[in-house]
Order: sequence, then structure tokens, then C-alpha cells
Amino acid sequence: MAAAREGQPRAVARLISFVEDDSPLLREVMQALAPHTGHARVIGLTGAPGVGKSTTTNALIAELRRAGKRVGVLAVDPSSPFSGGALLGDRIRMHDHAGDPDVYIRSMASRGHLGGLSWSTPQAIRVLDAAGFDVVLVETVGVGQSEVEIAGQADTTLVLLAPGMGDGIQAAKAGILEIGDLYVVNKADRDGADQVRRDLRGMLNLAERRDDAWRQPIVKISAARQEGLAEVVEEIDRHHAFLAETGELHRRRTRRARLEVEAIAVAELRRRWAGVGVRGELDTLAAGVAAGTTDPYTAADALLEAHLGDPGTGQA
Amino acid sequence: MAAAREGQPRAVARLISFVEDDSPLLREVMQALAPHTGHARVIGLTGAPGVGKSTTTNALIAELRRAGKRVGVLAVDPSSPFSGGALLGDRIRMHDHAGDPDVYIRSMASRGHLGGLSWSTPQAIRVLDAAGFDVVLVETVGVGQSEVEIAGQADTTLVLLAPGMGDGIQAAKAGILEIGDLYVVNKADRDGADQVRRDLRGMLNLAERRDDAWRQPIVKISAARQEGLAEVVEEIDRHHAFLAETGELHRRRTRRARLEVEAIAVAELRRRWAGVGVRGELDTLAAGVAAGTTDPYTAADALLEAHLGDPGTGQA
Repeated sequence: MAAAREGQPRAVARLISFVEDDSPLLREVMQALAPHTGHARVIGLTGAPGVGKSTTTNALIAELRRAGKRVGVLAVDPSSPFSGGALLGDRIRMHDHAGDPDVYIRSMASRGHLGGLSWSTPQAIRVLDAAGFDVVLVETVGVGQSEVEIAGQADTTLVLLAPGMGDGIQAAKAGILEIGDLYVVNKADRDGADQVRRDLRGMLNLAERRDDAWRQPIVKISAARQEGLAEVVEEIDRHHAFLAETGELHRRRTRRARLEVEAIAVAELRRRWAGVGVRGELDTLAAGVAAGTTDPYTAADALLEAHLGDPGTGQA
Repeated sequence: MAAAREGQPRAVARLISFVEDDSPLLREVMQALAPHTGHARVIGLTGAPGVGKSTTTNALIAELRRAGKRVGVLAVDPSSPFSGGALLGDRIRMHDHAGDPDVYIRSMASRGHLGGLSWSTPQAIRVLDAAGFDVVLVETVGVGQSEVEIAGQADTTLVLLAPGMGDGIQAAKAGILEIGDLYVVNKADRDGADQVRRDLRGMLNLAERRDDAWRQPIVKISAARQEGLAEVVEEIDRHHAFLAETGELHRRRTRRARLEVEAIAVAELRRRWAGVGVRGELDTLAAGVAAGTTDPYTAADALLEAHLGDPGTGQA
């Protein structure tokens, strides 16, 4: 644990494996790490396939390293509940920053059965935070739900776009307008980059917001040429200052912690329901639902009432 | 409700909207529908983008209609937590079978905040089942997690492939091997269809399975030419007979009901946690986690202990 707190890659990797495997040791690990958390800035990076997320992540790491920051990266692939895919990605990704002890990159397959991003990512963030990384970058492919989830977990969410992506981008726009703190148009040297920026600005301007709300900047970059990243980092800093001043940073982090606590409580409850005794009861209820002799709501009530002291708590 | 049970499209649509909106009336609706459920066969259809899911769904509907079956279709788009996208899809899809009162097609955006497929789809299936549809087809784009989820909800899961899809298919293979009851190779008239079938057969043969386990058939079709669909329907029937004989049908349906009951119980619990009183307590715990004065496991324990009569229930 001490080795992980010094950021030693193998020790960090081991703790993140505990997260992925939902190890029984996780509870103890998290208890020990708690006092050392709360320092890292959590940056989310999302975008449709093909916009250049990996290249941008690498370019952003390089820029942050130039500023002396230690950077931890979680590349979450919500399209892969199967852990096999993560390894190849790791090997490809590690290349650019291989040998730099102040960069740690980890691909994570989001796990289906515990609700994906909402379960494992915040805990992996917590490990990297306690390991002393100044910035934790969470990269996720933009497939709708994961975009929304990442926005709930990051201090600052970057949405990456690129020209020439066609309908995909158009379709995505309705969604991404709700989640970005900062928009990054990659492949700025290509035709259409300015058009993407103009379209996006137009759409952002249409959205209603309060006068004192954050006005999302749009930054053009060429990740492959390492151009424009300094401005991205500046805007991230500016957003962070905004969050801190308005108290929104505290609110976001508390919300993230609340989701995490809820997810763990729910997982724990499911574990109890799967336990001897309760499991048989649940199976009986489920068989009744399958047979049509009862409905799922009545069965859920029965399950809760049998395992909650006060079934009426908090209800109107 | 009676109108929905007769399969009147507007009445059915209204009840499914209740599901999508998580209406307070849902509980009452499900209680009333329960005795009328358990008759429909639930068929899952999944595959990567581009393999021809919509065309295959339409061809399969036509084949099932030829056999006199009433068909309900749920097209679930897990990449869209935003409801806007569903409408256009509806309009395009309805075209082929427009005016046929025995076909009902509905696009559903999977909802982010309640866990997507696992929440709304089983309830929409329940509505269509009670409305007297003989077959409920659940079509979902194959993006990993949703594939796995659909396999948990259908009696029979069809995995759709096509030649010429390149790396996407290769990458997907590890996952789809675990979920298909029946593999369908679309675009059989194209080069490479036989190769896809051979590769897939080879991989399926490598997987360990018991001697009495179901051996997944691979059927070649051309959905656009309406060729091969009769064989698909035959294989679905054969799989259904296998499930019924082995008792697996009952097990699958009970498991589906169990997941549904659990999901509703968890949602109900979250609702209570969001209620006055508990919410303040949860916020206090979350603020402690965000500040590093406590860890999420200890906070989750506190939350459960305060709202469960017997915190030790079901634990070892």
C-alpha cells in the first residue's frame, strides 16, 4: 500500500486489479487510502470513435508533463465487458510514455454486472488520487450512457470532436451539449474544423443558461502535431478555478462520492440478496413473477420489506 | 388497460411510455397485467452496427407473420440515453409493416439513470406479452454490455454477423461466443459469408461445453432478399423445444424475473435514499468521503445499517 502511495506502477496496478476483480481486500484498501485522497484533478475526455481520443490523450499527457504534473490515465472501454481487450490497448498506449515513472496508463474494461463505469471507475480514480497523481484523466469512448456517466464523475469534462465525422457527430450533438465543460476540435488542420466550431458555438448559444454559468470554451487542436494543447490545459485550469470559486467543485465531488456510496451500498445489498436464505426467497418471488401469479413491483416490495427494518422510510 | 390487452397500438404505446417515463402508474399497470403474462416467446437479436439488424428484423417479422404469429418489436438503442433519437427510427421502421395490426414496433432509448436495458426492457416486454403478442423481438445494437444484458433477458438470443465487417467482428467475437443461442450470417450472397461461418464454427467448437448442451446452429440468410428466414424460425422453434425439455426455459425466465425484481427493489431503495431525511444523511456521508475523512465502504455500511433492520442478513 505504501508502494502504491508512492506511485510505484506495479503496486498501483495491483490495487486497480483489486477494483476490477471486486476483491474482498478492496474495503480495507479503500479505508487505508481515504486520508490520502482529494488532491487529484479528475479530467474526463470523451468523444465518438474516430475523433482521435488516444492521440489527444497522449498529447495532453505530454503537455501536462511539461508543466511537471504527474498524470494517471484510465482508458475505460464501455463497449468491452470482456477483459481480454484491455491488454492490447495497454501495450499500444504505453508506448509514447513508456519509461516515464510519472505517467501511469491503464485500460479498464467496464464491468457489466456491477453497472460499468459507475462502479469501478470512481474507485480506480481513488487509487490514482491516493498514489499522488496530480491529474487523473479518464478517457471513454462516447457511446451515450458512458458520456453522461463520465460527466458525473469528472471535475472537468472535455468533449472531443473532429471534422469529417458526418452524421455520427450530428447525432451525438444533442447529447454532448449537456455534458461538456470544454469542447476540443481535433484535426484542426483539416477542412471543416472551423465549421464544426461554428456549428457547436451556435448550438451552445441556443442552450438556456444562467448569466453566471460557465460558458464552455471551444479549443481547436491538432493532437498529432501537438498543437493547441497548451490552450486546452489553460482552459482546464480556468474551469477548475471557476469550480472552486463557485463552490461547484465541492458539489461535484460530493455528488461523485454520493454515487459511489450508493453503488457500493447497492452492490452490498445484492450480495446479501444472493446469500443463502435470501436467495431462496428471491427465487420464489421471481418464479411467481415468471408464472404471472405476482407482479415484479409486489415482489420487490416483499423483498425490501423482509430485509429493511422500516419499509416506509423516506416515502411519502 | 383492456384495450392494451387486445393489442390496440395506441393503448400499448401508452403503457410503454409509462415504462419509459417511470410513471407512478406503472406499479398498478404491472399488477393488472401480471396474470396475462408468460405466453410470449422473447427473442433477442443483436449484432454490430452495419450487419443489417433492421433489415433482418423486418424479414423475420415477415416470416413470423406468414406463420400467423403476432409480433411485437422493441428496438433498444443503448447508445442513446436521449429520447430524441427514437422517433425518427420509429418512422423509418414502421414503414414495412405499417397498417398490419398484428405487428407493433417500438424504438426505445435506453435510460441512463436507471441502468438502461436492465430496467425498462423487461417491463416493456411484459406489456407486449400481456398484449397478446406471440413473439417479442428485442433488437439491440451490439456494444458489449447491452449484448450481454439482452442474453440475460431473451429466451433465445440471435447474434447477427455479416461478411466484410473487418476488425469490428473479430473484436466482437470473443464476446458474442458467450451469448448466442443461434448465429445468423446475413448478406449470404456476398464473398466471405462462408468464411465467416467457418471461422465462427471453429471458434464455437473450441469452447468447452457439456455433451448435452445446446449446439449453436449457424444459419446463412439474405435479409434483403428474404432468403433463409424460414430456417431461422425453425431453429428458434428447435431451441425453444430444447429449453422447454431441459427445464432451462423456466430457469431463464425465473432469472429474468429475478433481475427485474432486484432492479425494481434497488430503484425503490434509491428513491427512498433520495427522500427527505435520508438524503441529508447521504450527503453528509458523501461529503466525508469527498473530504477523505471516511471511505466509501464505511459510508455505504452506515447508509445500509441506518436503513436496514438487520445489517448482517445473509452475510457469512
